[in-house]
Amino acid sequence: MALNNDWFTEICAVSGSAFSLKVTEKLHQEQTPFQWIEIYETEHFGTLMVIDGFIMLSDYDNFLYHEMMTHPVLFTHPDPEQVLIIGGGDCGALREVLKHREVKQTIQVDIDERVTRLSERFFPALCEANSDPRAELLFTDGIQWIRGAAPGSVDVIIVDSTDPVGPAEGLFSAAFYRDCFNALGDDGIIVHQSESPLIHQQLIRDMRNAMGSAGFSQQLTINFPQPVYPSGWWSATLAGKKETLTHFRKQASQSKSFPTRYYNHDIHLAAIAIPEFWKQLSV
Amino acid sequence: MALNNDWFTEICAVSGSAFSLKVTEKLHQEQTPFQWIEIYETEHFGTLMVIDGFIMLSDYDNFLYHEMMTHPVLFTHPDPEQVLIIGGGDCGALREVLKHREVKQTIQVDIDERVTRLSERFFPALCEANSDPRAELLFTDGIQWIRGAAPGSVDVIIVDSTDPVGPAEGLFSAAFYRDCFNALGDDGIIVHQSESPLIHQQLIRDMRNAMGSAGFSQQLTINFPQPVYPSGWWSATLAGKKETLTHFRKQASQSKSFPTRYYNHDIHLAAIAIPEFWKQLSV
Repeated sequence: MALNNDWFTEICAVSGSAFSLKVTEKLHQEQTPFQWIEIYETEHFGTLMVIDGFIMLSDYDNFLYHEMMTHPVLFTHPDPEQVLIIGGGDCGALREVLKHREVKQTIQVDIDERVTRLSERFFPALCEANSDPRAELLFTDGIQWIRGAAPGSVDVIIVDSTDPVGPAEGLFSAAFYRDCFNALGDDGIIVHQSESPLIHQQLIRDMRNAMGSAGFSQQLTINFPQPVYPSGWWSATLAGKKETLTHFRKQASQSKSFPTRYYNHDIHLAAIAIPEFWKQLSV
Repeated sequence: MALNNDWFTEICAVSGSAFSLKVTEKLHQEQTPFQWIEIYETEHFGTLMVIDGFIMLSDYDNFLYHEMMTHPVLFTHPDPEQVLIIGGGDCGALREVLKHREVKQTIQVDIDERVTRLSERFFPALCEANSDPRAELLFTDGIQWIRGAAPGSVDVIIVDSTDPVGPAEGLFSAAFYRDCFNALGDDGIIVHQSESPLIHQQLIRDMRNAMGSAGFSQQLTINFPQPVYPSGWWSATLAGKKETLTHFRKQASQSKSFPTRYYNHDIHLAAIAIPEFWKQLSV
């Protein structure tokens, strides 16, 4: 069946697949200095943000991605007080991070202020924590910024980036991970979204190798559902200075003081389970 | 971006979403007495089978569904010797079931022989076990067949059906589950594919209620990725005569004697993890 003009479609060329959402209205579009942003209202997935033709998030299912980019890494670090988010301009990850009471400060560095301003307007729920006194929002190049960060000053770095094309490309390099390594303390952990566990296996391997060559002792790729991204199955890769990534704070996770919609202790264990074909590919 | 005629698209009306695969060739099409079957070659997902416009399976990712419809339930039953598959005409589930050495007989009852004949032709790898002496393939109405089954004669029933429209509709009813209950032994377990954990929450609730009213003591919904199905996230619901569905044979699973591509012991645990929003909806 063919789709008419009532649909927004994103093609994933490398997998010869496409995902479409029925839209009821285009709410906004603009060219920022960095990227082309479109906002749609969809029939069933709520409001949708698209950057350079790629779906960033929908109201309906962003909870999966935002919770899994934050809670696993925060419950893995023994005491995450200083958190840095690179990218993440929609502020959904920031909101989840600030649910953790032990976090004393979160600095978010996104290159494009317009993403955040549009999120405040079209995704107000994601921006609920923007005025938290522990939150600091900076709009500058994260790659430059991390180079100037004080060594050992950060506990957790969350790289909530777009795909490795355009402005985000440099975020997938060993040089960037090395700067992150230097900014992190002794227990420091970085997590970076790492695309589809099925389609992008080579990217995951390359990312893990880059993290290893940047000095990290261990990498752990976690996986979770994410319907609006290619294959509907997504991953994030953690890298730690110590080899403790599978030993998260289980009791804290089990007795967490805040609500979530996907994440819980058992889902944390589920996310770190390694599918058989990953073992064979030694990703 | 619009899709041209090089794409096969399936619309999921209830979620206002669509999934498309780039096709290189239509290999076959036919109207059987029961349904309209199309076979395509795709650019990246290998061969694709479509029934009544809905994607059934692709070479690329069917291992996820077939492994998760079979190994969790078989490692949960204490001694699965007699297995019944209702539907499953592509024979992918049958192949996985027969990897278990303790299975003495598997009867597969699919209403449409043409699905199996086309699978033998276009998906030969899935049909590798069809000539196993433990396999018996019947082509008749599973709903009628189960009514005549000897009480207590089956250990595990796998309902590998299409969506609850058309020929498969009766497979989602309490009356059918009651007939299955009667055919199962004291440790008996049924598993039925139960659509998307995100999109089809009401269907999952209804199915669990129907299984309960048919006499089963416990239901357990497992979840796993499945890119070619709506939302890319799928589920199967188990129902047991005893409340032991979360206590699978862990040692047997850990030391399984056959290869898999997704399933392993940790993935079994991952599949039974219950996302937070399911708890709130008490599905």
